[in-house]
Amino acid sequence: MATLSDITVSASINSLSAFLFLVAFAILRLQPMNDRVYFPKWYLKGIRENPSTSGPLVKHYVNLDVRMYLRLLNWIPAALKMPQLELIEHAGLDSAVYIRIYLLGLKIFVPIALLAFGVLLPVNYTGGNFSIMSLKMKDITFGQIDKFSISNVPPASKRLAAHIIMAYVFTFWTCYILYKEYKIVTDMRLNFLASQKRRPDQFTVIVRNVPSDADESVSEHVEHFFRVNHPGQYLTHKVVYNANKLAKMVDKKKDLHNRLIYYTNKYERRPSKRPTTKTGFWGLWGKKIDAINYYTEEIDKLGREEVAERERVIGDPEAVVPAAFVSFRSRWGAAVCAQTQQTRNPTRWLTDWAPEPRDVYWKNLAIPFVELNVRKLVMAVALFGLIFSFMIPITIVQTLANIESIEKVLPFLKPIVEKGSTKSFIQGFLPGIVLKIFLLVLPMILMEMSKIEGYVAVSDLEAKSAAKLYLFLLVNVFLGSIVTGTALQQLKEFLNKSASEIPKTVGVSVPMKATFFITYIMVDGWAGIAAEVLRLFPLIMYHLKNIFLVKTDKDRDEAMDPGSLLWPITEPRLQLYFLLGLVYSTVTPILLPFIIIFFAFAYLIFRHQIINVYHQKYESAASFWPDVNRRIIIGLIISQLSLLGLLSTKQAANSTPVLLALPVLTFAFHKFCKNRFESAFRKFPLQDAMIKDTLERATEPQLNLKEYLKDAYTHPVFKGGEVELMDIDEVDECHVVATKRSSRKGSQAGTSDGCPEDRTGIYAV
Amino acid sequence: MATLSDITVSASINSLSAFLFLVAFAILRLQPMNDRVYFPKWYLKGIRENPSTSGPLVKHYVNLDVRMYLRLLNWIPAALKMPQLELIEHAGLDSAVYIRIYLLGLKIFVPIALLAFGVLLPVNYTGGNFSIMSLKMKDITFGQIDKFSISNVPPASKRLAAHIIMAYVFTFWTCYILYKEYKIVTDMRLNFLASQKRRPDQFTVIVRNVPSDADESVSEHVEHFFRVNHPGQYLTHKVVYNANKLAKMVDKKKDLHNRLIYYTNKYERRPSKRPTTKTGFWGLWGKKIDAINYYTEEIDKLGREEVAERERVIGDPEAVVPAAFVSFRSRWGAAVCAQTQQTRNPTRWLTDWAPEPRDVYWKNLAIPFVELNVRKLVMAVALFGLIFSFMIPITIVQTLANIESIEKVLPFLKPIVEKGSTKSFIQGFLPGIVLKIFLLVLPMILMEMSKIEGYVAVSDLEAKSAAKLYLFLLVNVFLGSIVTGTALQQLKEFLNKSASEIPKTVGVSVPMKATFFITYIMVDGWAGIAAEVLRLFPLIMYHLKNIFLVKTDKDRDEAMDPGSLLWPITEPRLQLYFLLGLVYSTVTPILLPFIIIFFAFAYLIFRHQIINVYHQKYESAASFWPDVNRRIIIGLIISQLSLLGLLSTKQAANSTPVLLALPVLTFAFHKFCKNRFESAFRKFPLQDAMIKDTLERATEPQLNLKEYLKDAYTHPVFKGGEVELMDIDEVDECHVVATKRSSRKGSQAGTSDGCPEDRTGIYAV
Repeated sequence: MATLSDITVSASINSLSAFLFLVAFAILRLQPMNDRVYFPKWYLKGIRENPSTSGPLVKHYVNLDVRMYLRLLNWIPAALKMPQLELIEHAGLDSAVYIRIYLLGLKIFVPIALLAFGVLLPVNYTGGNFSIMSLKMKDITFGQIDKFSISNVPPASKRLAAHIIMAYVFTFWTCYILYKEYKIVTDMRLNFLASQKRRPDQFTVIVRNVPSDADESVSEHVEHFFRVNHPGQYLTHKVVYNANKLAKMVDKKKDLHNRLIYYTNKYERRPSKRPTTKTGFWGLWGKKIDAINYYTEEIDKLGREEVAERERVIGDPEAVVPAAFVSFRSRWGAAVCAQTQQTRNPTRWLTDWAPEPRDVYWKNLAIPFVELNVRKLVMAVALFGLIFSFMIPITIVQTLANIESIEKVLPFLKPIVEKGSTKSFIQGFLPGIVLKIFLLVLPMILMEMSKIEGYVAVSDLEAKSAAKLYLFLLVNVFLGSIVTGTALQQLKEFLNKSASEIPKTVGVSVPMKATFFITYIMVDGWAGIAAEVLRLFPLIMYHLKNIFLVKTDKDRDEAMDPGSLLWPITEPRLQLYFLLGLVYSTVTPILLPFIIIFFAFAYLIFRHQIINVYHQKYESAASFWPDVNRRIIIGLIISQLSLLGLLSTKQAANSTPVLLALPVLTFAFHKFCKNRFESAFRKFPLQDAMIKDTLERATEPQLNLKEYLKDAYTHPVFKGGEVELMDIDEVDECHVVATKRSSRKGSQAGTSDGCPEDRTGIYAV
Repeated sequence: MATLSDITVSASINSLSAFLFLVAFAILRLQPMNDRVYFPKWYLKGIRENPSTSGPLVKHYVNLDVRMYLRLLNWIPAALKMPQLELIEHAGLDSAVYIRIYLLGLKIFVPIALLAFGVLLPVNYTGGNFSIMSLKMKDITFGQIDKFSISNVPPASKRLAAHIIMAYVFTFWTCYILYKEYKIVTDMRLNFLASQKRRPDQFTVIVRNVPSDADESVSEHVEHFFRVNHPGQYLTHKVVYNANKLAKMVDKKKDLHNRLIYYTNKYERRPSKRPTTKTGFWGLWGKKIDAINYYTEEIDKLGREEVAERERVIGDPEAVVPAAFVSFRSRWGAAVCAQTQQTRNPTRWLTDWAPEPRDVYWKNLAIPFVELNVRKLVMAVALFGLIFSFMIPITIVQTLANIESIEKVLPFLKPIVEKGSTKSFIQGFLPGIVLKIFLLVLPMILMEMSKIEGYVAVSDLEAKSAAKLYLFLLVNVFLGSIVTGTALQQLKEFLNKSASEIPKTVGVSVPMKATFFITYIMVDGWAGIAAEVLRLFPLIMYHLKNIFLVKTDKDRDEAMDPGSLLWPITEPRLQLYFLLGLVYSTVTPILLPFIIIFFAFAYLIFRHQIINVYHQKYESAASFWPDVNRRIIIGLIISQLSLLGLLSTKQAANSTPVLLALPVLTFAFHKFCKNRFESAFRKFPLQDAMIKDTLERATEPQLNLKEYLKDAYTHPVFKGGEVELMDIDEVDECHVVATKRSSRKGSQAGTSDGCPEDRTGIYAV
């Protein structure tokens, strides 16, 4: 167990590294060349332009203004200055509500910490159990920190009453704040929805599992059905094509196109030597060929295939999946259709709110109902397997990735590997790196699992991935640290233990792990957040792209990677801090300041990021809040049960019924919140729909809604992110002409008419 | 443990008693005086008249036709003859579907029994473990029955594979039959709903928690809200008065009225002596007074109070509860309103389908939303307490109700009580009787608990009571018999056992309890069902009423108590047989024939009863089926887990993963059923609503729906169960006149004008 000074050292190291990250950030963000990395949001909004080109060249890249450096920390008040309403306007409701989670952490834990330091710390410190304990059991080393924890209170002491009372106070405080916050967020959401401008998804419902009809096409069937069953409300609909193959082609062409540009740039810089590539995988092996010719031809071929596929999809009735986006004359009509059952068979004509167009996950629209059930079952089993036995494949990889096997496969490395320092480095680090890589890949695996489950909106996919990750972290980080051993071993142990033993096992270990979790908070929390603001990876990527791919301002815009709030990753991880704070609030309150610093720091950083950097892909109007609320309540219940277990080992058995009431009450609070608020996040009330409709009819009586909705729900490969694909098409045409000419003439063709100048030159080889 | 011959004896005794009940029934039902007890349904339908009055008087009471007695069992084919469609027409869908549960039992268990007898019985019988076991462990006595059970298979035997395979076969068969049945019932329900005539509840929605408005009354507020938010669809509405006090008065008056009739009859039979009563509780003590005068005055007084209360309720805006029945122009409009959320705040303007008028539980309409949550929580805790500690109060009562305390309280009984035979009788029986009384009262307690929970439809109340009773029986009868000890002790034991130990404990005890459950099936099942058909209690009550209260044919009609399917009591009890059958199908298949006989017998009896006797109070269109299906699946999962536990003690550890798949698959099946069918029982699809609307508009374009709906949802005390209350009112008026006259004249008044003759005579005292 660590002593207080150990923790001080660790805290200093981590604070220092966090501070260094911040300094690096503060300097880097002032360099004009990094402007697009640290302020992409403003570029996307069109508010920020490239730094002015007057003055010496060096000024384009490096900031030489010394005064700027003196105001290194200016970004902090700037980040906090923007008022909430403006923030919502600027970054969307999702982001604005997301940072409220950190604020919520502060609201919960600052008063709790004050109370705990005022009441529990003195009670624990004067408990005097420490000396007895340390004398009795030499094997378990108690650190100084334990003097401030409940471990220092002797068994059956009357002092434990303080902890029980505090458990009640903390629970009520947390619930009170949660309730208030839920109410605020609900109001924010409803106001946001009410003030939203007209959007296609307000009028549109997604209908899935349209039954097949012998006499009618899907499109006719949908039209007839809704015309009959929603008379006066049905407006229009859009069938969905199975364009997955086409979408893949478009992606591939984009990739090839990037490569072509890369080689072209290379050639322009060194016109003396034509760049070459190899035909094999990633250009690593195979025949050596002329790169520009090769990619030009490939793009040409793919372009023709794409045109054919595009025609096939539009012409082929088989390519129409039994799903459609149905639009109504009013929001009221759409709200009615989304909330009601259409036919006797609840597996057909399934209607639900359409996700906003950006949010649709097109691939999953075609999955039939029965298959969905099977997929969900399979994924549930897989998730269980992943959570409880993820260590098995990792251990196998770790065993394979040891020195002996490396020497076997790559014998030429033997002399290097066998060197003492390298060897110990590999042996010490490799297993850790394998685990780290797995943890980095994990969210992607979980996302793939959610995709297999068949949700049709990206926001749903992200919510489900977050739920999975939360479960994983809860079992493998929290429980895994407390009850040491792999999750599978824990599971076995728990299965073989009685229900009343489990909280005991957890409860007893909790105070012993306090120092571990304090370190965890500093490493994963503090340093992690500081790394977030530095954006090292996007920084590097941006400059690489800038060097190799960027030719025009538009390219530069595309090279910018603003990223977004990685909600399905950050939220579950941040829930861990709520859990830790709640669990330790009564046990080892000295952990609380670390949590508070984390929340305050993260709030600051993320507020800065959502103002200046992130660009959200879609807007769900804070639909994630019920999940956030539920998970904090889960944390609260876990904390109550672990305290219960801990106290039952402290020979305070008569405290059990008193404490048992807490989880029951907390669960009742959860049910209450769910009933009271959740439907605001799932349904759209008719009254609000009616108000918006009436208002719109009064202000814009001439609105042609059908025209407005015409292309909203067209698969992106058809409307083609219109600008983006058109570009490629233009290029293609030029290129086709160019290659035809070149093949005919056998030599260089001139600049072909109508094609952008700086590109056609390349093709005309 | 019982031997085979023990069971044979028990079976004979129970069959004999069941047979005697049946013979008694067969004879009693032929007597004309009992006609209204055994065929009330036909009287209510107006098809059957009183037996013809020609012939000698004795013929009115006793059937002297010998030929009839020769065809004693004629009722059996008669009960089976009616085809299902006619049955639905005659008795309603609820009843018709209810008896399908017994048929479902036969469909599941007959093939399972055949397979089990063909495969498992030989495997068990030749297992040869019995001799070894009985030698080894003398303390546990194995009966002959165990030769046919899995106990006879030695541990780690390859024969156990047969049981595992059979567990799979049985599970798949059960699920297959459940799926088919669910489908059939769903279709029956939907067809029933589609073919239903116009009913007020098709157009009506119940709205609760209407927010209070400073400027408008509840009625105005409701009208404005729905006129705005359901334009073109809103038709009319009916506010709900808090008439609970008034309803109590009406009930009390009815009761007084009965007493008055009783004394009047008595007086008429012996005009020499005026009947007297006492003013105290139940007429047991207090001042002796003239009964007829007393009750006449009381009725008079109450009648005036009632009129005042009625006026107060209708006039007082405070008496209007914030709930209303809102009716729409079309079924489509009502379906839309019932399935959607109306406003931002999901605790206000709560809309749901209106129960049919007979089904409304008026008392609960006024409960506000938050209170509902609190009530549910409290009742959940109370139910938990009731299930796990119901033995505590019972034990206390049992201790109090022993001989010593009886002697103390009633010392004069001492000489009688002290007699040897009486003493042993009391000591042997009294505790049992206390328990029996509790079990009889239990459904009423559970019903009261459901009422407190605040459901607004009688059908909901019954469904929730059934759920509570099922839980109670599952814990206290099934688990209680298997793991001996009270439920509280079991709970403690289970809490102190590991999760993997629990199925083991249950599994090991299961085969040992086979004989107990066989006896249980015979006593509770066979004899219980036979007692059902005899209707001893209604028979006695009818004749008592006939003697004391009945004067006219109408009175006789009222004295008839057709009763109804006591769904909240019979269904949970019958689920126990499914559970037993499934649990023992792989373990001790010899139990299955007993179950099959129960189902066949019960099917026959209940089919007879619903045709000839029961009169359902409301029609829910089989809305209980999801519960039935779910509970059978719970039984299936319990059976799988107990087999798992049993086999894990048989050193067939590698069977665990194989068997673990079963509950997972079964649960998946449950989810599938729920998704596929349940909404047909909860929602009303728009398509069906539209079809019915269109049809109606075509066939009855002149229909005045507003007029049709006018009084549908008036509280029964206002429209007064019109016939019933009007009667009383008429009587009142007559009576008021009569008493006025008598008080004026001080002597007998003549037959007053316009009042039914045979009654006014009474009042004119």
